[in-house]
Amino acid sequence: MRIVVLAGGIGGARFLRGLQQAVPEGTDITVIGNTGDDIHLFGLKVCPDLDTVMYTLGGGINEEQGWGRSEESFRVKEELAAYGVGPEWFGLGDRDFATHIVRTQMLAAGYPLSAVTEALCERWQPGVRLLPMSDDRVETHVAVETDGERKAVHFQEYWVRLRASVPALAVVPVGAEQAKPAPGVLEAIARADVILFPPSNPVVSIGTILAVPGIREAIADAGVPVVGLSPIIGDAPVRGMADKVLAAVGVESNAAAVAEHYGAGLLDGWLVDTVDEAAVARVEAEGIRCRAVPLLMTDLDASARMARAALELAEEVRA
Amino acid sequence: MRIVVLAGGIGGARFLRGLQQAVPEGTDITVIGNTGDDIHLFGLKVCPDLDTVMYTLGGGINEEQGWGRSEESFRVKEELAAYGVGPEWFGLGDRDFATHIVRTQMLAAGYPLSAVTEALCERWQPGVRLLPMSDDRVETHVAVETDGERKAVHFQEYWVRLRASVPALAVVPVGAEQAKPAPGVLEAIARADVILFPPSNPVVSIGTILAVPGIREAIADAGVPVVGLSPIIGDAPVRGMADKVLAAVGVESNAAAVAEHYGAGLLDGWLVDTVDEAAVARVEAEGIRCRAVPLLMTDLDASARMARAALELAEEVRA
Repeated sequence: MRIVVLAGGIGGARFLRGLQQAVPEGTDITVIGNTGDDIHLFGLKVCPDLDTVMYTLGGGINEEQGWGRSEESFRVKEELAAYGVGPEWFGLGDRDFATHIVRTQMLAAGYPLSAVTEALCERWQPGVRLLPMSDDRVETHVAVETDGERKAVHFQEYWVRLRASVPALAVVPVGAEQAKPAPGVLEAIARADVILFPPSNPVVSIGTILAVPGIREAIADAGVPVVGLSPIIGDAPVRGMADKVLAAVGVESNAAAVAEHYGAGLLDGWLVDTVDEAAVARVEAEGIRCRAVPLLMTDLDASARMARAALELAEEVRA
Repeated sequence: MRIVVLAGGIGGARFLRGLQQAVPEGTDITVIGNTGDDIHLFGLKVCPDLDTVMYTLGGGINEEQGWGRSEESFRVKEELAAYGVGPEWFGLGDRDFATHIVRTQMLAAGYPLSAVTEALCERWQPGVRLLPMSDDRVETHVAVETDGERKAVHFQEYWVRLRASVPALAVVPVGAEQAKPAPGVLEAIARADVILFPPSNPVVSIGTILAVPGIREAIADAGVPVVGLSPIIGDAPVRGMADKVLAAVGVESNAAAVAEHYGAGLLDGWLVDTVDEAAVARVEAEGIRCRAVPLLMTDLDASARMARAALELAEEVRA
């Protein structure tokens, strides 16, 4: 079986680890990673979502915080601060810096991000094929109002520095319209037996991937089950601040509204948490098959059960 | 009094620290630093000599080894090695990396090396004006023969990786002919009251600086005492492997030969070590005033005495 998974950062990575446990070893899994929250820091290209997937599946993640490297130190960052060079709000550790240095060096040498990601994965052996959604630069900007003035900030600035403390007035994946899917992305979708949307952020993670022209269409046209898992449980995001950016695109913060946002043209199946049992009927009324199962990724086994439930729903849809 | 000092790395930096102790506080010292051994590592611009001067005078040097940062760690380098990315023979520490990251970021933003160096020195406050010899790229290459084949290697590869274990057949400051002195270099020389050559490498440090068109001429035409200190004591280099590169330019490894190599057209005074007393007559016969004094920079006071002796010889020459 060939599985394609669209993934953001922490939620996507943890779901993928569960999926790996749920399927037979050697199952062909291609991950299409969000690059809309990539950022240039200190002249280095940082790809938070790709790295979170790579480190998580490769055994190098900081398990507690869900991103960054394990046993990390921050000497480079301290020194940069001593030079008065910021931003200080982005926590780049020494081990993490090495990844960005290698990536930046390879990009400067002319390799596309997809080739660089493949090279980095040679070390990490994540057990999946990790593809950036695009080799072209896409940067998610968030429109906010501060001190009575409306301005656009980089998604990372909104998320990490401002901690989504002000309303997101709009979310714009700058450059997405001109971006092309990275090599292998459309091919993987076309060859997939099932396509999964983990409980990643539907706006700034999955939504950004779908904003790259060709990807949404390829998924809708693939003719295979497309199953997603709700990142919203009981009207609140499981982690992160998904509700903030959902409001910006006019979507209510509940499990059914997110399914409707993806739409029946794209989504065949949708998993909501057991506390959202009531949403099942509303989602099914939209023509999307829906099941309620526990959706908290409290540990690897719980994530694996979620992955199994998603694959079972896919088979139900297929039959 | 305005003093201009041409400097390489460790020897130049330690002499400068002695000079600072020898002169009244606030004395105007401009250092013209060698950039011929600059190297791009991991996509970052590394300026070993400028940094050694900056760290030494700014209190951040690793005192034992004479280069690199104090209390250094090597986590980034370990990670780069885990990615299979080298070279491993160049010891870049985490704290040091920050300097190169800031420098590379500023260069990429369009600042010339001289402006970048000034910005870095705002943190380190070295107490001198530190100028790179040029904002243009100059890279010292060394011709060597390995396995019967003649090839050119970067100076750092010759010095650090090969440890000068094979003869240097030629030393070429690639790009020097097209380089222009950095802003402020010729002006500092023209306004100087005295110009000093510390016991730095006469070929790959001082020699490279003098290879930038305009600098040698400006020094010769400045009409002020130019005094140097021999880096060779008793026919052997005080530190490093200066003898290896002296042979490449056809200069004997002794204190008198180095003075002759600079020549009376450039040099007015020359200090040799007391063990080289016999060289004094030979140097003076060339028209260069020469004195024998202890030249081992065993500690700060010894370096300060050497600086005082150099300044005294300059006054003798002037009178």
